[in-house]
Amino acid sequence: MIFYDQEKRSVCGVLVFRTILTIASQCEGDIINITPEVKKAVRESNVQEGIIHLFVEHSTAALTTIEFEPGVIADLKRALSVLAPDNADYAHHLKWDDGNGRSHVKAALVGPSITIPVSKGYLMCGTWQQVVLLELDVRAGRERTVICTVIGK
Amino acid sequence: MIFYDQEKRSVCGVLVFRTILTIASQCEGDIINITPEVKKAVRESNVQEGIIHLFVEHSTAALTTIEFEPGVIADLKRALSVLAPDNADYAHHLKWDDGNGRSHVKAALVGPSITIPVSKGYLMCGTWQQVVLLELDVRAGRERTVICTVIGK
Amino acid sequence: MIFYDQEKRSVCGVLVFRTILTIASQCEGDIINITPEVKKAVRESNVQEGIIHLFVEHSTAALTTIEFEPGVIADLKRALSVLAPDNADYAHHLKWDDGNGRSHVKAALVGPSITIPVSKGYLMCGTWQQVVLLELDVRAGRERTVICTVIGK
Repeated sequence: MIFYDQEKRSVCGVLVFRTILTIASQCEGDIINITPEVKKAVRESNVQEGIIHLFVEHSTAALTTIEFEPGVIADLKRALSVLAPDNADYAHHLKWDDGNGRSHVKAALVGPSITIPVSKGYLMCGTWQQVVLLELDVRAGRERTVICTVIGK
Repeated sequence: MIFYDQEKRSVCGVLVFRTILTIASQCEGDIINITPEVKKAVRESNVQEGIIHLFVEHSTAALTTIEFEPGVIADLKRALSVLAPDNADYAHHLKWDDGNGRSHVKAALVGPSITIPVSKGYLMCGTWQQVVLLELDVRAGRERTVICTVIGK
Repeated sequence: MIFYDQEKRSVCGVLVFRTILTIASQCEGDIINITPEVKKAVRESNVQEGIIHLFVEHSTAALTTIEFEPGVIADLKRALSVLAPDNADYAHHLKWDDGNGRSHVKAALVGPSITIPVSKGYLMCGTWQQVVLLELDVRAGRERTVICTVIGK
């Protein structure tokens, strides 16, 4: 039994599609709207009903959703600094002296992964809800790998 | 090879089931226990082994799990206010003047999605662990859409 | 059409594999590297391409990824204490008087679940990115259940 449109839909014959995004960041604190790339991955998968899972395979970057507008981006950065201020004494620095103590803390709290539904071949984000990569590393100008997995039919 | 009960179980012939919840909130700060609706979605899917993915398609709401008890709910609200105080100057307000700066920040940090395992047809939450929708928008009385996707067999 | 290696891979005939980890913690604030157990679950599943979903079915524990190094671990604990200080007045204590107010708040903000991609039979975490269980309960010496679900082929 398959319910269309209104509310419920059940599909069999599931497949897994994988693609990898490479996102270039410029500096610490960059918040990059990757929604266009995520939508492209959904289209390429040909999945109509299912989910797309995104994972950034780095410990000083993170993924979430937000209204992508400069004001909110600035507000989010300030909130992250409450958790992990720039000038705190980080125990991590005793090991590597890389200045990335705050980066790791922020990344662990926001998290490396997000999953979003796909319906009728489209990414089901709200109008004011974009998928963003947070570059949290103090070393500027990095390429970040986001692994996309689409599961569905 | 299929292992039952004890620890491991492997199933083929996976399907995807989709249903959409509409949750009415009353005011900013509402934390709503949606566990009954999520359990209902699991039952309707007829999936025995798999996962249920939940996604709130709004940028001023979020999903997580918590012991649903008024004290903890109040404590969580206070913690969110540490990150995004009511009376801070939000850059977001320069754009829309909608008072939602704190709402977006909280929503981005808690996150819009959660995934929970399903086993023997049941939602595998702990006894003291409920699924909650956080209404973070300053405009009261909204309907929120939570997209449920069950994948499994 | 199947693309190997470079970027894209699409597979059919998906299965679901389930295994359950039992992790012993010693005290509040333990952050335990469970990456070896997660890798073992991936191997046992025989899934080559897909995802592994992890869920801790307790309201005073959480999952995330981080560089597993004592300095960062200490820095993360401090950041969590900004959100939920040890000596705050928790409304939760009026109900149970169990001292777990801060534990629930931290667990709800970090979250109970994480999903990681699997490719060529391997867990796709970064080199400096380990999967960790956060023991946040004030009562020491607990066994924690982490439900693993591998979906893929």
